[in-house]
Amino acid sequence: MEIKLMRNILGANDEIAAQNRKIFAERGVIVMNLMGSPGSGKTTLLEKTLTRLADKIKIAVIEGDLFTAKDAERIEQAGVDVIQINTAGGCHLDASMIQKACVSLNLDAIDLLIVENVGNLVCPAEFDIGENFKAVVLSITEGDDKPLKYPLIFKESEVTLLNKIDLLPFTNFNLQSAREDLTTIHPTIKIFETSCTKDTGLDDWEAWLLGKVAR
Amino acid sequence: MEIKLMRNILGANDEIAAQNRKIFAERGVIVMNLMGSPGSGKTTLLEKTLTRLADKIKIAVIEGDLFTAKDAERIEQAGVDVIQINTAGGCHLDASMIQKACVSLNLDAIDLLIVENVGNLVCPAEFDIGENFKAVVLSITEGDDKPLKYPLIFKESEVTLLNKIDLLPFTNFNLQSAREDLTTIHPTIKIFETSCTKDTGLDDWEAWLLGKVAR
Repeated sequence: MEIKLMRNILGANDEIAAQNRKIFAERGVIVMNLMGSPGSGKTTLLEKTLTRLADKIKIAVIEGDLFTAKDAERIEQAGVDVIQINTAGGCHLDASMIQKACVSLNLDAIDLLIVENVGNLVCPAEFDIGENFKAVVLSITEGDDKPLKYPLIFKESEVTLLNKIDLLPFTNFNLQSAREDLTTIHPTIKIFETSCTKDTGLDDWEAWLLGKVAR
Repeated sequence: MEIKLMRNILGANDEIAAQNRKIFAERGVIVMNLMGSPGSGKTTLLEKTLTRLADKIKIAVIEGDLFTAKDAERIEQAGVDVIQINTAGGCHLDASMIQKACVSLNLDAIDLLIVENVGNLVCPAEFDIGENFKAVVLSITEGDDKPLKYPLIFKESEVTLLNKIDLLPFTNFNLQSAREDLTTIHPTIKIFETSCTKDTGLDDWEAWLLGKVAR
């Protein structure tokens, strides 16, 4: 029964996601759905990204969180328009939440809309929100077994950031094995190794992201 | 609509959880529901715990995972009975999955049943599986803001393990602030600081866990 209900919910979501996608295309907005486990470093990556891109393109952010506005308050410091969505305990953002949040944004003034999803390596990957592409942040400290254990999110994401790469020496994370597994799951996946505390890999990430907007 | 469906699903789950709880009590089995984000260190903690308790009490393990048997294979090495549940992408274990898995266990021969839930800081906290108590593993590398951002799981859990404490010097994790937030959310919560690579805090954890079984 649960599976059938789930199928209906996903079907309804897909319809709204298609509407969102059409609206974003008409208004010339590229949308990135940023996902990852709690504590993988999504918000800090976002802060770094916003600072770097502030004078190059116009960005807005939608912050998904269960209850608090903690992340949105951090993003506001970067001087960027940010809309907070509280899911009231819900484990993912869906297309209707995004549609509602977009009413408060002037889409014509935006090049890139970044949606930071709820910290969760499972559910967000199942819900299309009308984005152009998904990105997943995997912290080195989470372990190299995560791509095979949570394959859907890596299959769905155009890009993976292996984040907190500065902590690699203090873990048993096998970079080569993780890269092989990622490529097995998703042959064309783009992989960056990043550290937001050491500013590692962020030039390449910035250049890639700008390339997505320029297209 | 989604909320109403969710309420029905949770109601049905609670009924089965109550059945499980009755069965466990009759058979004298204490059940721990072990939760935490992907990569918080649940399986490694479990390996350490099993090795320490092997000659003291009889333990069995139920491993929840989306698709693979990677964790169950690790646990089998410890010489413990382990049942693998694959949720086929599902984001949590529910009471009916546990009931079904228990058919393959000889409950009379078990003192402690440890259920390692799907790696997820959100959904597993919503589903009673009939356990005696919930435990949540939070890795230091996930950040000290997680208790306030994901309050339900910390409210539901009798104990929190602040794990990978050996990585504390390489992060900006504020221990005092995390402890204060945990106690605000859940005044009686028991907190351990653990490292499975450095064997920190595991004596206290072992003693506490043995105390739960002896009661």
